[in-house]
Amino acid sequence: MAENKEFVKDIANIDEDFGTWYTDIVRKADLADYTDTKGCIAIKPYGFAIWENIRNYADKLFKETGVQNVYFPMLIPESLLQKEKDHVEGFAPEVAMVTEAGGEKLEERLVIRPTSETIFSMLYSKWLKSWRDLPMIYNQWCSVLRWEKETRPFLRSREFLWQEGHTIHETKEEAMERTLLMLEVYAKVVEELLAIPVIKGKKTEKEKFSGAEETYTIETLTRDGRALQSGTSHYIGQNFTKPFEVKFQNREGKEEYAYQTSWGISTRLMGALIMAHGDERGLKLAPKLAPIQVKIIPIAMHKEGVLEKAEELKERLSKEFRVELDDRKEVTPGFKFNECELKGIPLRIEIGPRDIENGKCIIVRRDTLEKKEIELTNLENEIRETLEEIQKNMYRICENRLREKTVVATTLKEFEDKINEEQRYIKAMWCGDSACEDKIKELTGAHSRCIPFEQENLRR
Amino acid sequence: MAENKEFVKDIANIDEDFGTWYTDIVRKADLADYTDTKGCIAIKPYGFAIWENIRNYADKLFKETGVQNVYFPMLIPESLLQKEKDHVEGFAPEVAMVTEAGGEKLEERLVIRPTSETIFSMLYSKWLKSWRDLPMIYNQWCSVLRWEKETRPFLRSREFLWQEGHTIHETKEEAMERTLLMLEVYAKVVEELLAIPVIKGKKTEKEKFSGAEETYTIETLTRDGRALQSGTSHYIGQNFTKPFEVKFQNREGKEEYAYQTSWGISTRLMGALIMAHGDERGLKLAPKLAPIQVKIIPIAMHKEGVLEKAEELKERLSKEFRVELDDRKEVTPGFKFNECELKGIPLRIEIGPRDIENGKCIIVRRDTLEKKEIELTNLENEIRETLEEIQKNMYRICENRLREKTVVATTLKEFEDKINEEQRYIKAMWCGDSACEDKIKELTGAHSRCIPFEQENLRR
Repeated sequence: MAENKEFVKDIANIDEDFGTWYTDIVRKADLADYTDTKGCIAIKPYGFAIWENIRNYADKLFKETGVQNVYFPMLIPESLLQKEKDHVEGFAPEVAMVTEAGGEKLEERLVIRPTSETIFSMLYSKWLKSWRDLPMIYNQWCSVLRWEKETRPFLRSREFLWQEGHTIHETKEEAMERTLLMLEVYAKVVEELLAIPVIKGKKTEKEKFSGAEETYTIETLTRDGRALQSGTSHYIGQNFTKPFEVKFQNREGKEEYAYQTSWGISTRLMGALIMAHGDERGLKLAPKLAPIQVKIIPIAMHKEGVLEKAEELKERLSKEFRVELDDRKEVTPGFKFNECELKGIPLRIEIGPRDIENGKCIIVRRDTLEKKEIELTNLENEIRETLEEIQKNMYRICENRLREKTVVATTLKEFEDKINEEQRYIKAMWCGDSACEDKIKELTGAHSRCIPFEQENLRR
Repeated sequence: MAENKEFVKDIANIDEDFGTWYTDIVRKADLADYTDTKGCIAIKPYGFAIWENIRNYADKLFKETGVQNVYFPMLIPESLLQKEKDHVEGFAPEVAMVTEAGGEKLEERLVIRPTSETIFSMLYSKWLKSWRDLPMIYNQWCSVLRWEKETRPFLRSREFLWQEGHTIHETKEEAMERTLLMLEVYAKVVEELLAIPVIKGKKTEKEKFSGAEETYTIETLTRDGRALQSGTSHYIGQNFTKPFEVKFQNREGKEEYAYQTSWGISTRLMGALIMAHGDERGLKLAPKLAPIQVKIIPIAMHKEGVLEKAEELKERLSKEFRVELDDRKEVTPGFKFNECELKGIPLRIEIGPRDIENGKCIIVRRDTLEKKEIELTNLENEIRETLEEIQKNMYRICENRLREKTVVATTLKEFEDKINEEQRYIKAMWCGDSACEDKIKELTGAHSRCIPFEQENLRR
């Protein structure tokens, strides 16, 4: 069909130009658009519905572990940001500064939060008195601002949406437990909802968060073999609680500084899912995540009874699935098929006069593009099973890629050869010295991603 | 009991100093606290849980009317804000301005959104092509910033949380219909969830939103007889779509400017509910809204079997209600009762050894402080009925107050006398002339709140 070609032509070739393909998907699949505020995107309804599903899924898991939501100010007095040395060094270069307000120059400049360790620590110091008040396990869903030079929608926006959890604890052990627990929760969100396998591990000294003792990460892999940091959880220790005087009377009646954590996932996950699952036809959404799981497209809609049957199906299936009917008259079914694929809707149903006569319909999977004729009487069962199968299959494909794109290097020479061959993960021994890390980066351009929790013996 | 007195002493007397009582409740009931960012509050877990319930309730109603959520940038280029004359006049004096970012002075200053008509209009102008694209019914939940001189927690914060809906339509009629529909939705949220009756009406020319053709409002009444604007819905017409060139090809193939609306409710509703329902003992939450509907307080917790029974009850009741058990050992039951009342928990259960022996417990209503002995076997039914009764009773009390505090004035003299007598609503005839509105304000300090939808004949 003519439209088919035109539609696909609209998107850059995924194998030839992955970067342009990515921004094409963001815009053409109606996820987000550029705005007059440079470096800041507008998240459109379809994109936001995906983010809302991520947020709701994660928020439920958070609350099951005792997290409580709050909302703290977005403006931070400059002096507050400067209280923790590493933190200010890391963030000062990229903050946006409010210098005037209400028509007057401010006495003290205010920073739009790039992250809120400082605000949380300031408030915790007001509220914390005794060990009985601990732990405080607070989180906020908000936007933050980091003045990046180079931006890319979802991956690196100046303003982005995220959640930031900030907790304080009585002991180091408890704080460390929370740090690792949240990493597990993040892994669950990404693996179970987004259908993307992760590598869990610890960041090196060089790559850790400004102000943290230790940073833990989940890393995903893009189709083109790049690692993407998809969530981090920091053990902050007493780095902030000391300068901010977040202290309490412990069980022995002595004064002690609390132990702190912070952790975040952001709309960068939108980028992760586009780049992990997308293909030449567009986005691919995991069924559990998809705002629309099933799209019904009537064929020969002008024929008697077709639209009625499609509407009946929509009503019937809506009891169990997130369903939409595309009853637009101004575009052809072919156009609708393409759009459905571009937007990554897991399953579409095609139903026309002959199908109706036979008590059947066609279902088409987005992941494999496989078509299947289904008895209408058995439709719910088929859809349920197929959606589950798609969810598993999408995960499996990424898992296979992760396996294929992970190689072992036992010498520096081997490391160089393998990274030059192809963009991918390389497992290598590391002495733990930053100088070696720097040298590899200099020689190969490769960054250390993490020290994985699951280690195998890499010696020959 | 000693603690009783101490506890209540902590809060200002509601009849003598309503203003201090209000801020005491905000802080002592753990709703919010002041921060180092002047004029900006921190919403604490208990306060945020209430707001989350408002948000989720409203968001569900919004979506049932076809609203789609989005997220657009918080920073607005200054030139964009200046495109609509009335709007910039209304908001320019109270914006916060970003002038530096990423270590450099910005070429164009950026305003932190005080509201987003300009950003939405800019984006709509990019996306709108044909009448087939209409309507666009978008909403965002976010924070906004208005540099108020005088601030009060929830009522007038520099930064506050809200939702802002912005829609564009093919016809004036459709836009007006949406404006009024959203006002109905707001009335439903406030009346059904918060248990506060509203007066719906239209704002006068003087009081309408900067940039709107017409502003509709829901007004609630505080315990001390003040009107509180609790939600507004604006018919904006083509005031923004013309300067922003938000135009489309209409059904006749001609170019036309879209018709716009905007509408918002905010965390000011938190203020409304405190001031409508609170009493000398603290906050009172409507059962549908309350994050904790039932608090179980064990009596003589050290006695065998008491804590176990309380835990068993908690588990059993959690299937149907939002329940918490207060099993702290370091405070007395008396302290817990007071705290429970201060935090406005609709129902508390007291259970001790003798109750357990008799297969009973005591339930205490927050609204009437009435105590009742209940058979444990019948507990769910009793709680369900009592919570419903509390929801209705709280509404009824506000409704009675609204009736009592609304009087009619048929002459200016009568108006002056009645407003001087007591702070309250006065229904009066009005010619519609702004000069008369100004004169009444000058003479009496009274503002026009709205021209109510439900009018009676006020002539003698």
